[in-house]
Amino acid sequence: MKGKFITFEGCEGSGKSTQLRLLSEYLTEHGVDFIMTREPGGSEISEEIRSIILNGKNTAMCDECEALLYAAARIQHLKEKVAPALERGKLVICDRYVDSSLAYQGYARGLGTEYVANINAFALEKFNPDLTVFLDISPADAFNRKHGADKNDRIEQLGLEFHQKVYSGYKSLLPVYPRICAVDCSGTKFETSEKIIKLLKAKDIIK
Amino acid sequence: MKGKFITFEGCEGSGKSTQLRLLSEYLTEHGVDFIMTREPGGSEISEEIRSIILNGKNTAMCDECEALLYAAARIQHLKEKVAPALERGKLVICDRYVDSSLAYQGYARGLGTEYVANINAFALEKFNPDLTVFLDISPADAFNRKHGADKNDRIEQLGLEFHQKVYSGYKSLLPVYPRICAVDCSGTKFETSEKIIKLLKAKDIIK
Repeated sequence: MKGKFITFEGCEGSGKSTQLRLLSEYLTEHGVDFIMTREPGGSEISEEIRSIILNGKNTAMCDECEALLYAAARIQHLKEKVAPALERGKLVICDRYVDSSLAYQGYARGLGTEYVANINAFALEKFNPDLTVFLDISPADAFNRKHGADKNDRIEQLGLEFHQKVYSGYKSLLPVYPRICAVDCSGTKFETSEKIIKLLKAKDIIK
Repeated sequence: MKGKFITFEGCEGSGKSTQLRLLSEYLTEHGVDFIMTREPGGSEISEEIRSIILNGKNTAMCDECEALLYAAARIQHLKEKVAPALERGKLVICDRYVDSSLAYQGYARGLGTEYVANINAFALEKFNPDLTVFLDISPADAFNRKHGADKNDRIEQLGLEFHQKVYSGYKSLLPVYPRICAVDCSGTKFETSEKIIKLLKAKDIIK
């Protein structure tokens, strides 16, 4: 692959969308050839799968089904959108990736990281990111910032206890995958954005 | 589990629907407490997944995505519909199951049976059928019977060569899984139906 692949991770309300927007503005201003995409979704078929996963009516969905749907959407998105962009030498920035499955389904849902890694073998073996930015903020602080969850989103409806497990899950992944770098988000959004840009420069992702 | 779980397998046009209807009539006449269900689908969420898999417009779908979607629909259907019926002591008859994934995705799509078995570990380990009826008829004969494929079905659009691979896949599974019994379908539909009923009696599924 000619391009670089970086992913963003964090709990609900960690400011991921804001940071991706600020980074996008920075990269555009500095003439970097990049695409920004997201999981689950990012391609037509993956977006169809996304709508099943996030549908607030699908309360009967079992944890294994959820994990398999994420894995299905992921691989389709990788092959249809990420791989072709990397081949063209682009910088690909993805909002959530396999670490979300490990933290949410593996840790917080209790399926175990081995099961989740198994069904995501393709992503972990063939499309390992060059860098994963983890927006490090506790779920309690994140929720306070966001002023409540979206009632139509099946994942956001879950309580603080669940999100605390997700956060602990992410923390457990840090020593396992050295590609994941935690960025402290206790400052203002602009301070955090500066930290992210410094990190991308330090890792030779951008100049 | 108190009830028995039996599954039906076969290539497109093998007469599976006809045989399931005839068996259903027989069981109803003989007062057997059973449910008949199908894969992919069989529950609300699984039917949503089914519609993505079979949508003729989704030609960009990669093989791994397809295999993961089948596995996701399967586990949801198992937990939501099959397991509760078995717990109530019912005979559960399912049109297609994990062997379809092994034959179609593992063999015919070339993903390998190890990959497919891995993502279907839950089904193979916790919901192994008591009996699997394989309707044994060559794809050429099957197609001749059916007078052509459904143009709106993404799977049926595939050519004879693909279906021959599926058939060979099923044949390879026979020595691996002794629960799979091949039923020769060269006779009339009523002759085949009689063979199936005899088999169910011999295996103590019905009296």
